[in-house]
Amino acid sequence: MNRIALALDLGGTNLRLAAVGENGTIYSRSRSETPRGSSGDNVIDLIVQLAENCRNGLADPTKVCAIAAAVPATINIEEGILNKLPNLRCLEGVPLREILAKRLGVEAVLENDATAAAIGENWLGASRGVETSICVTLGTGVGGGLVINGDPYRGKDGTAGEVGHICVEPNGHPCGCGSRGCIEQYASATAVIRLAKSAGLAVSSSSEVYDAAIGGDERAVAVFASMGSYLGIGLAGLVNVLNPEMIVLGGGVSAAWDLFAHQVRREVNERAFPEPADRVKIVRAELGDDAGILGAARAVFASVGKGAAN
Amino acid sequence: MNRIALALDLGGTNLRLAAVGENGTIYSRSRSETPRGSSGDNVIDLIVQLAENCRNGLADPTKVCAIAAAVPATINIEEGILNKLPNLRCLEGVPLREILAKRLGVEAVLENDATAAAIGENWLGASRGVETSICVTLGTGVGGGLVINGDPYRGKDGTAGEVGHICVEPNGHPCGCGSRGCIEQYASATAVIRLAKSAGLAVSSSSEVYDAAIGGDERAVAVFASMGSYLGIGLAGLVNVLNPEMIVLGGGVSAAWDLFAHQVRREVNERAFPEPADRVKIVRAELGDDAGILGAARAVFASVGKGAAN
Repeated sequence: MNRIALALDLGGTNLRLAAVGENGTIYSRSRSETPRGSSGDNVIDLIVQLAENCRNGLADPTKVCAIAAAVPATINIEEGILNKLPNLRCLEGVPLREILAKRLGVEAVLENDATAAAIGENWLGASRGVETSICVTLGTGVGGGLVINGDPYRGKDGTAGEVGHICVEPNGHPCGCGSRGCIEQYASATAVIRLAKSAGLAVSSSSEVYDAAIGGDERAVAVFASMGSYLGIGLAGLVNVLNPEMIVLGGGVSAAWDLFAHQVRREVNERAFPEPADRVKIVRAELGDDAGILGAARAVFASVGKGAAN
Repeated sequence: MNRIALALDLGGTNLRLAAVGENGTIYSRSRSETPRGSSGDNVIDLIVQLAENCRNGLADPTKVCAIAAAVPATINIEEGILNKLPNLRCLEGVPLREILAKRLGVEAVLENDATAAAIGENWLGASRGVETSICVTLGTGVGGGLVINGDPYRGKDGTAGEVGHICVEPNGHPCGCGSRGCIEQYASATAVIRLAKSAGLAVSSSSEVYDAAIGGDERAVAVFASMGSYLGIGLAGLVNVLNPEMIVLGGGVSAAWDLFAHQVRREVNERAFPEPADRVKIVRAELGDDAGILGAARAVFASVGKGAAN
């Protein structure tokens, strides 16, 4: 019947909306910077306005069956309430699912952004046709999403997939999560900058570290090598536990692929059992910024009309 | 229809067989030491003989519908062939499923022993009624099995669940698997003995270390505390990734529960996200040596007659 979903990527920097068809075609888009220091009501008003823009840009706005939001948050699945949004505190505790459904007059689904990215890559990206995959987003932090036996895996409370908070150095760098030595402290953009600075580089972004490495700076090269090793140590454990077919690496830092992928693979080969190490493909994400939007749309098509709200 | 399965626990030390009903009742048992330095044929002959003893001990031997074997091996699921049996090398590459089916005239199913234990505990033990659980066996090595959304999770090659080979110390003690610093190097009976010896204790078994700790030896107490901490570090990562409802700890070393459980819980609480850390129950296994036998029987009842061979 060619339904269309509105899909929102609710980022700390940008709000991005798209109208997505059941085959993944993007029919229209709208976006805005995420208002800083604004109230939750203002952010929601802006989301609704962007969604209406997107819907009105369609040849037939009545085809829109639902809105799906990929959110950098833990989601209370039963209630559709957002929890733990360090970059969007004004939405903490907000029953976003109910609000969006009411304001837009369609069903609404919330999905963790890293899980949405995993679903998107599994639908139309690097892990198309793969039954069991792990998607890791290397951005400001390190997120993760799981697809197990063809279905997104969210865990009992919807918090599953936090690959970035596997410990790889028991007494390592303190992490914002309260632990120490998490993957996130070695493989995020934030970590790359920190490690580069402590190696004596004057940088303020991970792409500057990348440029320095490409330019031959051995300290910058070593930062990415170390990043790849720690990421590989953590992923090797997951390969042993989950025996997945594929690990997809996305997010901004994955642009430095050539500088760290070899180390990831080496650690997985050295540390995981031979059979699952041989099995697992480790590849770059293909959908870029659209992974979350497409995955959220896919999640909503899978759930809407089936009586399952999420 | 009250079917009965023969269930085999194929250990490096003992061969244990039981006739198990569909409700978990054990009707008869037989056992033998595992022949040392014997040929594969001899071991198989002995298994068949034990199985016949067990079947003949039943009021109605015709109720036996299948044989299920819990094996300390990676299983080639399609072929029913055993791989990687460090303690039973004479069965390496043996098509045990086909042989048992032919010799006993019933369907046969192979299951990794740690996965079988997870299924058994989920059926009749500590994790009864729990949808998603991780079962960790702390024995000579550290094994693990997963039950996800009510079903055993075996991974693409049947190698999933190797919790013991999550790295918790990147440059730690070398592991038999080829990696370094695996959980197994800190939380197995072998590790407890090694750590106790290097602390100056004259011991040759983990139960002697336990006795020393109970007797007030602070070095022995510290060994179990360290063991619990490392186990907790690894499990905290799994709690973040899988958001399970329960972790079940079994195997011989779990007898020292009171000496290490507090440290496991502390690391999980400190290192995992609050919601999944609150969610996860960490408990002792309940079925002891019968977990694998019962789990293998459960697996065979689930698969036989449904056209799924494993």
